[in-house]
Amino acid sequence: MTTQELISEIRKKKSFLCIGLDVDLNKIPQHLLTKDDPIFEFNKAIIDATHHLCVAYKPNTAFYEAYGLRGWKALEKTINYLNENHPEIFTIADAKRGDIGNTSSMYAKAFLEDLGFDSVTVAPYMGKDSVEPFLAMKDKHTILLALTSNEGAFDFQTKTVEGKELYKTVLETSKSWKNSENLMYVVGATKAEYLAEIRQIIPESFLLVPGVGAQGGNLQDVCKYGMNAQVGLLINSSRGIIYASNKVDFATVAAQKAFELQQEMQAILER
Amino acid sequence: MTTQELISEIRKKKSFLCIGLDVDLNKIPQHLLTKDDPIFEFNKAIIDATHHLCVAYKPNTAFYEAYGLRGWKALEKTINYLNENHPEIFTIADAKRGDIGNTSSMYAKAFLEDLGFDSVTVAPYMGKDSVEPFLAMKDKHTILLALTSNEGAFDFQTKTVEGKELYKTVLETSKSWKNSENLMYVVGATKAEYLAEIRQIIPESFLLVPGVGAQGGNLQDVCKYGMNAQVGLLINSSRGIIYASNKVDFATVAAQKAFELQQEMQAILER
Repeated sequence: MTTQELISEIRKKKSFLCIGLDVDLNKIPQHLLTKDDPIFEFNKAIIDATHHLCVAYKPNTAFYEAYGLRGWKALEKTINYLNENHPEIFTIADAKRGDIGNTSSMYAKAFLEDLGFDSVTVAPYMGKDSVEPFLAMKDKHTILLALTSNEGAFDFQTKTVEGKELYKTVLETSKSWKNSENLMYVVGATKAEYLAEIRQIIPESFLLVPGVGAQGGNLQDVCKYGMNAQVGLLINSSRGIIYASNKVDFATVAAQKAFELQQEMQAILER
Repeated sequence: MTTQELISEIRKKKSFLCIGLDVDLNKIPQHLLTKDDPIFEFNKAIIDATHHLCVAYKPNTAFYEAYGLRGWKALEKTINYLNENHPEIFTIADAKRGDIGNTSSMYAKAFLEDLGFDSVTVAPYMGKDSVEPFLAMKDKHTILLALTSNEGAFDFQTKTVEGKELYKTVLETSKSWKNSENLMYVVGATKAEYLAEIRQIIPESFLLVPGVGAQGGNLQDVCKYGMNAQVGLLINSSRGIIYASNKVDFATVAAQKAFELQQEMQAILER
């Protein structure tokens, strides 16, 4: 998917909501556990109920790997279901990968080609040659960790490197990499005030913003400091939507929560 | 496996060799491709031929994920084969994972509990709460990326953070994390001269050293600067051993290459 197609979808749905599909068998409605593939059944129900309210889905691969082969099968079925039924929706493999060049190529092939995701999250620690293999894929997107929403972000990301914070060095350095137009960035909502400075470095890029809701970030602040003329934001919510109810009505309640966020986004877009 | 058990195994075999099981179907002997599971057959043959010469095996998960479900199945079969037949050998899931706390717990469960690896490689960018879930597992080891062997290591890892290089900040900070005695570190062999300074920060820890051979590092230099009283080194070789021949004799040739490295290590240990 091209960036322009993503922007069109945002304008059409008046939403820049991304729903995180972080499926934990201990948290999903218990009646699903009797199904052949409870993980996929849960995802399918969530997707069926919310696809008109969001522009992206983001399965975090850890939740699938935790179930071994069964988990990978559910991940495959989920991305296939999305690509077949909702090809207009942007898909993110939240995998946070990154390795030396030839090995990153393997990851890029796995997530962007074989599984057919539109994008994958990548960690920057190993530098240029660990990221460029992802960037080489046409009409695919690499979402680089810049400033994450967790406590540990302050251990290294905000440390001062040659006069500025490490995450700013990551943002600036990444702009010089080959095919950097395919970059987006993860920027946590718990630090909305950082967004103004981030926008000075990367005014045009899309930001994937986790941490609205469960992790305590505020949608209004994120938009105030982070939105650009092309919207430029994907706001992720996982637990706040998919686990809003763990009863048989879970998909309906998830849709209600997604609708509330979409309405808030629509109001911001129409301001 | 405890660190003491690993050290005993090193002393017994007079080897601190780790063999990287990075299986690429384009590089393995073509006669294996007719088998039901060529990836596992290749690994099994390599393990059968080399297990007396090395103390660790390290499958890089990217190579398995690149083959989807089939790849994960081969990875499962490989670790099961090792745990059943060679429980004395240290196993490393070279996965380079790292995510917010509850998500890192899922990865820790997947690799250390369910698959039963002795250790997993982890990226430090997201800080303390992304690593501690791995460290919490008893008699398991977390191998933190410090200074990698690729070109991109110079993008961020060697940048100066508050007076010293980022990788040194990573080393020092990580020592304060809970259960930090379960930490080992990835330090690339292409920068052997850095090892003396690294040893000043973490004198006792084991270092996993990739990049001897194919990536150009020198075993003698690595040992000169990096070895401690408990040896404290695992030297990884992947391509130089497993792809030394792509004919029917591949396992024999791999064993020969492993033997040459083991002999060089024995000479160093007996100095």
